[in-house]
Amino acid sequence: MNQSSKQTTDWAGDARNASPDGEFVRDTNYIGDRIVADIDKPTQQPDGTWHWSATPNAYRLVAARACPWAHRAVIVRRLKGLEGVISLGLAGPTHDVRSWTFDLDPGGIDPVLKIPRLQDAYFARFPDYPRGITVPALVEEATGKVVTNDYPTIVKDFNDQWKAYERPGAPDLYPAELREEMDPLIKYIFTEVNNGVYRCGFAGTQEAYEAAYHRLFNALDTLEERLATRRYLVGEHITLADIYLFTTLVRFDAVYHGHFKCNRNRIQDMPALWGYLRDLFQTPGFGETCDFTEIKQHYYKVHTDINPTQIVPLGPDLSGLFTEHGRERLGGSPFADGVTLPEPLPASERLKNPLPQQQ
Amino acid sequence: MNQSSKQTTDWAGDARNASPDGEFVRDTNYIGDRIVADIDKPTQQPDGTWHWSATPNAYRLVAARACPWAHRAVIVRRLKGLEGVISLGLAGPTHDVRSWTFDLDPGGIDPVLKIPRLQDAYFARFPDYPRGITVPALVEEATGKVVTNDYPTIVKDFNDQWKAYERPGAPDLYPAELREEMDPLIKYIFTEVNNGVYRCGFAGTQEAYEAAYHRLFNALDTLEERLATRRYLVGEHITLADIYLFTTLVRFDAVYHGHFKCNRNRIQDMPALWGYLRDLFQTPGFGETCDFTEIKQHYYKVHTDINPTQIVPLGPDLSGLFTEHGRERLGGSPFADGVTLPEPLPASERLKNPLPQQQ
Repeated sequence: MNQSSKQTTDWAGDARNASPDGEFVRDTNYIGDRIVADIDKPTQQPDGTWHWSATPNAYRLVAARACPWAHRAVIVRRLKGLEGVISLGLAGPTHDVRSWTFDLDPGGIDPVLKIPRLQDAYFARFPDYPRGITVPALVEEATGKVVTNDYPTIVKDFNDQWKAYERPGAPDLYPAELREEMDPLIKYIFTEVNNGVYRCGFAGTQEAYEAAYHRLFNALDTLEERLATRRYLVGEHITLADIYLFTTLVRFDAVYHGHFKCNRNRIQDMPALWGYLRDLFQTPGFGETCDFTEIKQHYYKVHTDINPTQIVPLGPDLSGLFTEHGRERLGGSPFADGVTLPEPLPASERLKNPLPQQQ
Repeated sequence: MNQSSKQTTDWAGDARNASPDGEFVRDTNYIGDRIVADIDKPTQQPDGTWHWSATPNAYRLVAARACPWAHRAVIVRRLKGLEGVISLGLAGPTHDVRSWTFDLDPGGIDPVLKIPRLQDAYFARFPDYPRGITVPALVEEATGKVVTNDYPTIVKDFNDQWKAYERPGAPDLYPAELREEMDPLIKYIFTEVNNGVYRCGFAGTQEAYEAAYHRLFNALDTLEERLATRRYLVGEHITLADIYLFTTLVRFDAVYHGHFKCNRNRIQDMPALWGYLRDLFQTPGFGETCDFTEIKQHYYKVHTDINPTQIVPLGPDLSGLFTEHGRERLGGSPFADGVTLPEPLPASERLKNPLPQQQ
């Protein structure tokens, strides 16, 4: 909303819209299409968006290790065992002004889509696409056209719409009986935490920054209290709500604390959140998707308004993520009985920059 | 060395000289004059510098709460009980491009020197003064002329040259019998720590930053080890070496960790250094001279090359500085038997922005 085309050449997480009082306001205007089960061809909906058919090997998820919004989709794809059904393309951490680029791939070209920039997939479908070229995006492999970049529905639809193709025994990350509790909590995490760190970092005035800082740490204090007595946010097992929170928490001490001035304390200083973060990080599907080098390079190199030197900090020491978390005492378990765990990572999806403990 | 006059309008700590390989190199070319005992009028020395007479109520120390180099002189003046002999002028935290300014004083004018900018005292003596307008500076009150800004000798001379006027029972912070041990250690702290944080923050390239980061944390690891088994750096009591180290340590978590990217860890994460910092902070003469608001405002507002938004972080939580340090078990004591402690702060020298625990 209110983004000029210059601003929207950046990705969702970096879109900097300052309202008149200096507060950062995220663009929430995405391509609203979905990929769903039980249809066999693209079907227009009453609201004008399209539903596409959940067909194996038809779509490519384009993500970037750096981006917390894309990271959710990468984790859900792993937990659901969709690696053999939906392929994964990974843009590099430091996109140019026009688009995320496939600079990590040989020749700088995505090996499946055969394009150097994600914008090519957007323009293939919408030649004058006016908004942000964002990840995560799902692209139809046959036509090279972007299908959707609507990050909230992408993860829900990965959970619900691919049941015919997911790994047998894959977890239900969005159980029907928990949705009434999950939906407002997911919204809270989105507005207060996922977005909250950006509201601090992209504040246009001291006043807006201070308001954002207090709002963020109020939310973290609330979640710290909630997680002091329960292993996961909702129910007894990992759900989408945990995945929403994880992708911000795992970047917090490495990036948001210094770069976005979210520095009342680190997550490492909040015992429940720190145990919870380590618990998730050590669960299959999570830690092996976290490339801290790409995460840090992205934020520190792309946001030249905040870090004009583009120097990337060497710290912090992240070895604590691999230490015992002791959260088992709270009851619950990562997944319900009988749920299967992700297979080992395909070679093409291994981290380019693993920490020593991730090797 | 090699500073253009444009660069030198900033103070010592901010002078940004990048050598050809991107490493920050501090200007070490200061006014080498001294104020000494046992002379009654300014006397030129063989090297061309002048010695001035240590006369009570003749000189004003111009400092700024923000500056670690000035902070040393403020602490030594307190510990030596020279408050009634050498007056104190305090520039504000956010000097303009020309000079440190007296913007905290009524009307923006230093009440004794009657000048708005410290540069006026420099120009009163050297009309074409080409280098940095730096604090600490000693200014002759009667003439308004700067006498010296040579920060290494200022603190040593406060200790040695004012014995006739210091508080009875003031500590000897530079004891003759310890100088052989102190001098190389002070030099090490200066090059590796005091300057080391600037070398990280003002590095011109990623390579220079990374070299500076490793060099800094190697030094902090070395000092951590030294202070694990002894309460103070040299001997059994506080010396100038501790004051050198203190002024960097006390700024570290609040500023250098994020702003200068010295972020392997905080001082709070290094048990010996953290205990040592709290021990000193809680010793009369130290904590009551630390204005964290001015410290943070200075760095975050003045260094627009690093923080162009000029937004000042609200964090970190500094309440840990007031917690028990437990360092007494290592033996030693802040001061030798019979040494007197500083008097309560004169009203004019109270912090403008005390933390709740400093009130």
